[in-house]
Parts: sequence; C-alpha cells; structure tokens
Amino acid sequence: MIALGGNAIKQADERGTTEEQFRNIVTTCRQIVKILEKDPDMELAITHGNGPQVGNLLLQQEKASDAIPAQTLDVLNGMTQGQIGYMLQQTLQNSLREAGGKLGRRQVISIVNQVLVSRDDPDFLDPSKPIGNFFTKAEAERLAAEEGYVINPPAGKKYLDKKMKGMVIKQVKPANVTPRPFRRVVPSPEPIRNVEAEVIRLLVEQGIIVIASGGGGIPVIMNEQGRLEGVFAVIDKDKAGEKMASAIKATDFLILSDVEYAMLNFGKENQKPIRRISVREAEKYLSEGHFLAGSMGPKVVACIRFLKNGGRRAIITSLHKAAEALEGRVGTHLYR
Amino acid sequence: MIALGGNAIKQADERGTTEEQFRNIVTTCRQIVKILEKDPDMELAITHGNGPQVGNLLLQQEKASDAIPAQTLDVLNGMTQGQIGYMLQQTLQNSLREAGGKLGRRQVISIVNQVLVSRDDPDFLDPSKPIGNFFTKAEAERLAAEEGYVINPPAGKKYLDKKMKGMVIKQVKPANVTPRPFRRVVPSPEPIRNVEAEVIRLLVEQGIIVIASGGGGIPVIMNEQGRLEGVFAVIDKDKAGEKMASAIKATDFLILSDVEYAMLNFGKENQKPIRRISVREAEKYLSEGHFLAGSMGPKVVACIRFLKNGGRRAIITSLHKAAEALEGRVGTHLYR
Repeated sequence: MIALGGNAIKQADERGTTEEQFRNIVTTCRQIVKILEKDPDMELAITHGNGPQVGNLLLQQEKASDAIPAQTLDVLNGMTQGQIGYMLQQTLQNSLREAGGKLGRRQVISIVNQVLVSRDDPDFLDPSKPIGNFFTKAEAERLAAEEGYVINPPAGKKYLDKKMKGMVIKQVKPANVTPRPFRRVVPSPEPIRNVEAEVIRLLVEQGIIVIASGGGGIPVIMNEQGRLEGVFAVIDKDKAGEKMASAIKATDFLILSDVEYAMLNFGKENQKPIRRISVREAEKYLSEGHFLAGSMGPKVVACIRFLKNGGRRAIITSLHKAAEALEGRVGTHLYR
Repeated sequence: MIALGGNAIKQADERGTTEEQFRNIVTTCRQIVKILEKDPDMELAITHGNGPQVGNLLLQQEKASDAIPAQTLDVLNGMTQGQIGYMLQQTLQNSLREAGGKLGRRQVISIVNQVLVSRDDPDFLDPSKPIGNFFTKAEAERLAAEEGYVINPPAGKKYLDKKMKGMVIKQVKPANVTPRPFRRVVPSPEPIRNVEAEVIRLLVEQGIIVIASGGGGIPVIMNEQGRLEGVFAVIDKDKAGEKMASAIKATDFLILSDVEYAMLNFGKENQKPIRRISVREAEKYLSEGHFLAGSMGPKVVACIRFLKNGGRRAIITSLHKAAEALEGRVGTHLYR
C-alpha cells in the first residue's frame, strides 16, 4: 500500500493547471512502475492527498456562488477523488502499457470511497486542519467582517452543522509563513473505518491496482437514523490510508512525500535522519515532540497503528526514492 | 443495467444544491430498491448523466479562473463522476441497509471510468451537444465579443485542440426555448469501448452494485504515442451505457427518464405511445424521424445497439415506473 503526498500531484510553486498535474503524475507513475518491475505480480493499493485540489475547488465554488450553489465539503471531496483518481488511473494505465509484459496486463481502478468518523470527535469542536491559501492579518479581518469568518475562536463551539459552513480562520504555526500567517481551518476527525474496504480488498486480491481513500476519504458519520451522512471535515490521508492498509491486510505501507527521512530533533541544529526504529521508539519520539503536527506527526502515527494492526513494515521516504526504500537502502523504516 | 436520466439527480426547476440533489437521489434509490426487492440477488450496474452538474462546474471554474486555473473538460467529467457517484453510492447503501435482509448485505461502489472515442469522430468538426445554461441572442453576442465564443460556426474546423477550449455557441432547436434560444455546444463523439469494462464485469459478477460510465464516461482518445488522453467532449450517456451493458453481458437494459413511453409522431397531434417494438421497427421509426435528436433518439439507438450486441430486452420508461416496467406493465419495450 502506497500513500502519495501532495508533491506527487502538485508542486508547491505551481498554480495547479491540469497540464502541470498530469506532468507530475507521469513522474509519480514512473516510480510506481519501477516498484512493480521488481515484482510484477505485487498486490498494490494506492491512496493520495487532495489538499491543494479541494482548497482550490472550495474557493472556485465560493467565488461563483451568486450564480451556482456551492456544493458541500463532503461532495467536493468526492469530486477531487474523481479528479485525481482519473489522472492517476489514466497515467498509470499508460505507464504500465508502455512497460509491457506482465505489467502491460495489470489493470487500474479508482473508486469513490467513504471513511467513517465519530460525530463526537473532538476536532469538530476545535478544527485543526488548514486548507487553501494563506492570508495576511488584514485579509483575515476582511473575511471576518464581510463573510462572517471567525478568527481564532475559543474551542468548544460545534462545527458539525448541517450547512457545513464552519468558516474558521486560525493563526498558523510555525511562524515561518509570515507575513501571511492566517489560514482557513476545517475539522480533521480520526478515521474509524474505511466504508468500502471489502470491495477494495476483493479488487486487490484479483491483481487489480486500486486507487482509494483519496484525500483521506469522504468523511461520513453514522447519523441518529443509522444512515451514513457526509460531514464538513477533511481526514488526514495517511491516517485514513492506514485504516485501508490494515483492512486489506497489506504487508507493507509506504508513505511518500518530499523528504527522504523522518528526523530526530526536526528543525533544530542537531536534527538527524531516522533509519530504523521500532514501534516503541517511534512512540517515545512522538511523545517527545520530534515530529511536526499536521506533517510528519500523522505519518509516524499512521505507521505505528499499521504495525500494531498486524502490518509487517512501514516506510516513510520521498517519492523519488520509493523503489530504493523498498529495498531497504533509504528512508525511515519502522518495524514492530 | 440501469441508465438514470437527469431527473434522477436534479429536477429541471432546481438550482442544484447538494441538499436538493440528495433529496432526488433518495427517491431514485427507493425505485432501485423496489426493483431489487423482487430479485435480491440480481446482478446490477448503474449509469447516470451529468449534464447539469458538468455545466455548473464548468461555469464555476471559468468564473474563478482569474484566481485558480480551470481544469479541462475531461477532468471535470471525472469530478462529476466523483460527485454524483458519491451521492448515489451513499444513498443506495443507506436505502439497502434500511431494506434489510439480503439487500442489507449488498455492496455498492462507484468507479472512475473512461470511454474511448475516435480522434476522427465527425462531431469534433461540428459539435452537437448543448451544455449549461440557455442564452438570449444579446448574451450570446456579448460572449462572442468579450470571450471569443463563435456563434453557429460553419462545420469543418477541428475542435479537438490541446487547450480544450472549443467555445462554440449554437442556436438550439426546437424553438420552444425562446427567448433564450442559444446554448454552448461541445463535441459528442460516438463511444467505442468502455476502458474499465473488465473491472466492472468482475465486480458485478461478485454481486457488487457498480455505478460507472457516469456522464457518458470520461472521453479519451488513443493518441499518436498509443497513450490514452482526455479530450474536450461529452459522450451521450445512453450510448456509453450501451457499451458498458454489452461489455458486461447484461441481459436487460433499462433507460429511465421523465417520460413513460417513447412516442410515435412525437410532438404532433397524433402522437402515440410505443409499447412493444422489434429492432427492425425501431430502426424504421428512427429513420422516419419519430424521435428527437439529443433526447429520445440516442435512447432508441442505444437500445437497438444493445439488442444487436446480444442483449435480451431493452426498456425505455420513466424513473417512477421502473419496477412496473420490468414486469412488462408499462414502458416502451424493445426486443430482437
């Protein structure tokens, strides 16, 4: 199971045109083919983030909302699964066909995929996930005055409302993003269960490469009537990826981003790449605050959970070192 | 195999909020459950249109294009597969669980699905598919002057360009939509093959209800390098549905819209519902012009192709009569 980070689809300095995204995805799929070339029958599932895409989509929908009703955030998440799923699926199909042989016969499918969260998750009371653009203090204040956004609200108000507006702006940490230190935040509840895990497992076992749980999955709760219902939230894609990896009984969980290693003492002078650690050590480092919340933190948490749920090996490394990492030559390797 | 018309998701007089669409889909899924209750083990695949949704999305993306790059039409089609697929999948899951028993154990999955078309399809030279809103003559002329749209161009220029702009406005027939008789048109090439048919068939055979080929599928060509590549086009959803129905060897093809019958002499004083016709009769009526192009026409064509490709029975009827139609009590039934 591979979890692709944002850079697999959109580079930080790009605007996010279709052309740019396809170009990045071609590079990404070349890495995936490199992995499969070592084991053409490998059962494989892929997940991906959607931060920049869902942020852009939200903004587009809001900008046009005088003419056309903006869809709710759960629906937008479904839309980005269709968007990114399509681009990944088509490009991987093309790359596999070009590789030929056994790989040329592998099939690829992206699915629409929901992930269950709890309606009582504390993040609905204190939203933590930044999305979309950065704002200056003045811009944030204008949004508050004109659009009704709340800046740095006290925790405790419930943001799980029917209208799914939840317009909250928070000051971002760390402060290295000044002079635009404000950003919109949405609730990021813990994933409980991948709703379509059984279908994913069936497909993977048939040798089909499955793209699922995109953007952390579409967040749904079980409502009072026992029906699934979308909520205003974004689930962390690595934590959701872990739920999927464990449900389909993946042996290896590969989290790819733009750094080759998780670091001890991250951001400090004595920072140092981690090569091999046990779950116990990882838990210790995590509690000591070595990993950034919302960045390396959830990746390490996802790896720990995966190993505790029966996984064999979890690796955190960069997209471009994926194949070498699987051979043990690079990356942060976690074991039970 | 069921093909859902636009009214299954959005009523003509609605703005298209998430709430409205979910409400319509609840009614739609009630019909589907009614069909399944007569045969809880029935293998079932579903497709749906996306006209209003992709039109809205295109407009939103264009309205916000000074801030955020608009995605190309193939990507937008993928987005609407995620959007509508999510809403249908979740609602059908809920409806099945409420029905309980065997139905409560049926699984539902929406997939991202491409449909192959020819780069030489004549519709790329003379786009025929209206999308989005209606315009007055003055509005159309303003769009031509300010945005570079072409009004009623002579056929022959190729609209299959890399930028996928293809901004063409045509006068719409019939004239009953005046005083807003202009509409944007896009190429609507003939579907050749459902790219992911094998995966769909596998899922359906496992008893999983599959939602696929949404919006006629994401239109792709095989380019000069032998790679799949999205194009600026929209495929007719009933014709694409036929390709899928035939590929998965469906026995019955049910096309649901807002009318109970296809009509002989449609729109005339002597119009008369068609109850049972053979392929040969249907072809005769089609060539005599009894069915509206872009409306009943492609539905009848899809049914004829389905039967010629080995299908047993094709039915055209209204969404709300679906279950009765399957029992033969209502609807236009086509046979070999």
